[in-house]
Amino acid sequence: MTSTRRTLLAGIGAAAALAPMMALQRAMAADPNERIGTQESHDALGTAPDLQMYGSEVVAMLLYPGFTALDLVGPHFFFASMMGATVHLVTNGADLSPVASDLGLAISPTVTMADCPKDLTILFTGGGLQGTLNAMKDTATIDFMVDRAARAKYVTSVCTGSLILGQAGLLKGKRATSHWAGREALSMFDAIPVNERVVTDGNVITGAGVSAGLDFALALVAALRGAGYAQALRLQAEYAPEPPVPGGTPETTDPQIAKLMQDMFAPFPAMVQEAAATRRL
Amino acid sequence: MTSTRRTLLAGIGAAAALAPMMALQRAMAADPNERIGTQESHDALGTAPDLQMYGSEVVAMLLYPGFTALDLVGPHFFFASMMGATVHLVTNGADLSPVASDLGLAISPTVTMADCPKDLTILFTGGGLQGTLNAMKDTATIDFMVDRAARAKYVTSVCTGSLILGQAGLLKGKRATSHWAGREALSMFDAIPVNERVVTDGNVITGAGVSAGLDFALALVAALRGAGYAQALRLQAEYAPEPPVPGGTPETTDPQIAKLMQDMFAPFPAMVQEAAATRRL
Repeated sequence: MTSTRRTLLAGIGAAAALAPMMALQRAMAADPNERIGTQESHDALGTAPDLQMYGSEVVAMLLYPGFTALDLVGPHFFFASMMGATVHLVTNGADLSPVASDLGLAISPTVTMADCPKDLTILFTGGGLQGTLNAMKDTATIDFMVDRAARAKYVTSVCTGSLILGQAGLLKGKRATSHWAGREALSMFDAIPVNERVVTDGNVITGAGVSAGLDFALALVAALRGAGYAQALRLQAEYAPEPPVPGGTPETTDPQIAKLMQDMFAPFPAMVQEAAATRRL
Repeated sequence: MTSTRRTLLAGIGAAAALAPMMALQRAMAADPNERIGTQESHDALGTAPDLQMYGSEVVAMLLYPGFTALDLVGPHFFFASMMGATVHLVTNGADLSPVASDLGLAISPTVTMADCPKDLTILFTGGGLQGTLNAMKDTATIDFMVDRAARAKYVTSVCTGSLILGQAGLLKGKRATSHWAGREALSMFDAIPVNERVVTDGNVITGAGVSAGLDFALALVAALRGAGYAQALRLQAEYAPEPPVPGGTPETTDPQIAKLMQDMFAPFPAMVQEAAATRRL
């Protein structure tokens, strides 16, 4: 039960099955040959420069209780829109029950950790707050990350998901980033914290907080399919940001608001320390 | 079963219940008094200028088969992070089964249309492609939108969700936007298509394609809670975009790639026309 897409266009593959009362199972098994545009229009796109139209990437995105949904759904849009890629939503739970995010929005996994493919193109985890700390303390989850990372082409995270990579020993000596509230805590895992939007060190790619997942994913699409393909998906997502208020980083936010938000997050590094202490030596 | 949040910080409220094996139900009912930061640090934020800390907004976000998950999850992050707001995920299905998005990622609704509160602060729908057309043809879905819009403080959409608003007769004579592939089709509903990121006309607020949901939601948060609050949430989302490839709109994308993408989406307006023809006069 994967979301393999053979079309560039988001989800058109499921068109035939998308009657309002359809069952989830039916959607997952939908005819992938249904799509908008002709075969010719799809093949024509493949003639653009620096653009590999088809691929067979295998992506695993970790779901754990308390994850931040936007950390995952941003990259999912881009990964699942790559024609031919297969995206698995991997629960660290015992069964395929929906996994509730930190804000209550629950997403259905497609596979358990045990059933997740062994060899991955992309291993991904998003972040969260208490939920991420709980995942760090869960031996089975960390064992899963260690195992799949050993063979994955790319080992990746967005937001405080990098703390999970750190807990799994995957960031030793590596440059990495995280949500601003957790970035310096990366040094607890012998990582080198870097204040950049997307940080690449070897095959480890980490994104900054929450919304950085969009930039992170486009960078990874460009690495896998070429900058032309990433530009096509950027256009599909109409990603031409115009935030209506200033800020976005502690450095660019109104100092009074930034200080108050930093004060609110101040307990977080100590919470990370406590979770980190539970890892095996 | 709502995702009421009394804390600014995404999901910290659910901390106590977020053990890996927890049930969804438990997460939904989690103790909202658990949070990062002290009560004092939260109250301190309320002293910042142009920032209303607490509120009691009631938000309804429509889920239908084939919706684009990122259209909804972007705004959900910001709406659900407003302290005191209640966000309902409203399925147009018969029960609370997970609703599959166009790319296969399925989200659990929290309420059916019948059980959705009558009086809303924000009525929201995201877009999609075939799934959106199917929703436009579904009488019960359109009836629901008409009814709730009549009393909602804000009637809103992201991406091709504006086609659903149009089908419900909510855009007559209104300036509105949509995904670039569907924007001109808004004229079929007597709307005035506008090529802007976020368009406000009276109490109708529409966002452009997919990723525009982040800008759209921040604009709405600013309207409800002040620009200071929006700035705080922008910082929480670390929304300081740095797309790694050019483009994002047809006008700014490499012309060859833009042309090929536009060709691929070329059949869409005719599909909208066919769906629009099913509406009651």
